[in-house]
Amino acid sequence: MLSAAARARLAVVLVGARNPQNIGAAARAMHDFGFSDLRIVNEFAAPFDAAQLEAAQLETPKSAVGASSVMQNARRFDSLAQAIADTHLVIATTAIGGRELTQAVLPLQAAAPRMVSALETSAQRIALLFGSEKTGLTNEQLSHSSLLTTIPLFAPKAGRHLSMNLGQAVAVCLYELTRAGLEGARELPVLHEATATSGDRELLTHLLLEVMQTTGYARRYPHNATGPLARQLVQQLGATHREAMTWMGLLRQILRNEKV
Amino acid sequence: MLSAAARARLAVVLVGARNPQNIGAAARAMHDFGFSDLRIVNEFAAPFDAAQLEAAQLETPKSAVGASSVMQNARRFDSLAQAIADTHLVIATTAIGGRELTQAVLPLQAAAPRMVSALETSAQRIALLFGSEKTGLTNEQLSHSSLLTTIPLFAPKAGRHLSMNLGQAVAVCLYELTRAGLEGARELPVLHEATATSGDRELLTHLLLEVMQTTGYARRYPHNATGPLARQLVQQLGATHREAMTWMGLLRQILRNEKV
Repeated sequence: MLSAAARARLAVVLVGARNPQNIGAAARAMHDFGFSDLRIVNEFAAPFDAAQLEAAQLETPKSAVGASSVMQNARRFDSLAQAIADTHLVIATTAIGGRELTQAVLPLQAAAPRMVSALETSAQRIALLFGSEKTGLTNEQLSHSSLLTTIPLFAPKAGRHLSMNLGQAVAVCLYELTRAGLEGARELPVLHEATATSGDRELLTHLLLEVMQTTGYARRYPHNATGPLARQLVQQLGATHREAMTWMGLLRQILRNEKV
Repeated sequence: MLSAAARARLAVVLVGARNPQNIGAAARAMHDFGFSDLRIVNEFAAPFDAAQLEAAQLETPKSAVGASSVMQNARRFDSLAQAIADTHLVIATTAIGGRELTQAVLPLQAAAPRMVSALETSAQRIALLFGSEKTGLTNEQLSHSSLLTTIPLFAPKAGRHLSMNLGQAVAVCLYELTRAGLEGARELPVLHEATATSGDRELLTHLLLEVMQTTGYARRYPHNATGPLARQLVQQLGATHREAMTWMGLLRQILRNEKV
């Protein structure tokens, strides 16, 4: 069983969710399964602050019954990078759809034990990302994550596009996580080094892009020198904070030399 | 994997659900997980007929996207007894609450395999009952079932009453049912890219060491520029062959510039 402390380390991040009722439904599912850290990324205007969220909740008691503490503590961010800066492991949910993905996707059942052992054994903070009701997560948003997961839906015809209601998707994922807590947690070594955070990785991504530009690599292979690809390259770069710092030091040295 | 024929034998029975939006959400979850037999029991007036349900669905496109075939085929019954008359096994969901139950309750994970084997092996028709949003199933309604099941929620204090949103509860139950059918099947990630080999990594290690030497990084941080540390830094570098090739290209470009 996932401990209360472990549950507190999971952040549910809703990216671009616009419907207050869906946000309320997500908050209610979190409350039901014992999670509390809700983060809302809205890159456009700022339609939600805590008070407005609370008001939205009052308008939609059905979807947010018992979830008011989760709503009250929800935080809004302007960008995904800010929302996940303090997390060590980022898992993105995706319906896949017709897209060609360049990252591996694990079915939820296979991804959950990894999340559970990260939460339980190494005190890591984890972000679980959900995209907007309409479009899901974009490839750029997916590139912030080190692991993609999908809820296996029923598609009798290949290529038929399926996606779940946001509140239902959150409920199913959190159910699987607490369910997996009953079995998992026995694998994986305890890591003694501090693990790298998403903030570390975002810094590395920017340094890497700068190196690509400065060295002329970006001119030769422009489609390899995009933000999302650089971010994806950096995803597995530096499991520990120390490794991440070493990479940063090397990239800075390269830049220093180029500028001479 | 539950076969399509087996899925067709499961009836989802909503007893006393009054909110069309919740009915739409349940229908959408059924559609997502490949189920189609929706039955609605309303013992009072008869506020829903198929046309009205369809209309309700049109009012709530968000909760019923893609679920219109389920809605169109939904049937209304005046009593629970009528709704389940043709089923062999009746499973009721309950949040338990403060009630004293006289029947055993299995957590969903334990009840699901029984349902799956009944559906698969003996071609039985199964009814899965959900109560109203407000009260859940009454003891009288529970007495129609041969098995009670509950979704394990998080209750830090004993006696604290928890109940799930109807659409979310349906989604979680159907997920668990199809999940249980998946067990053993162990479907895995479809990665379109070839994964990186140890050979790729060894090449990367040597290139990285060369960059450390050439740029002067090795002089500044000699203990970071050792073979073992470089190899460790490269371990997670490039999950795919394409990523590994991209790193190699960048490192070669850096070396080319340094040598000019």
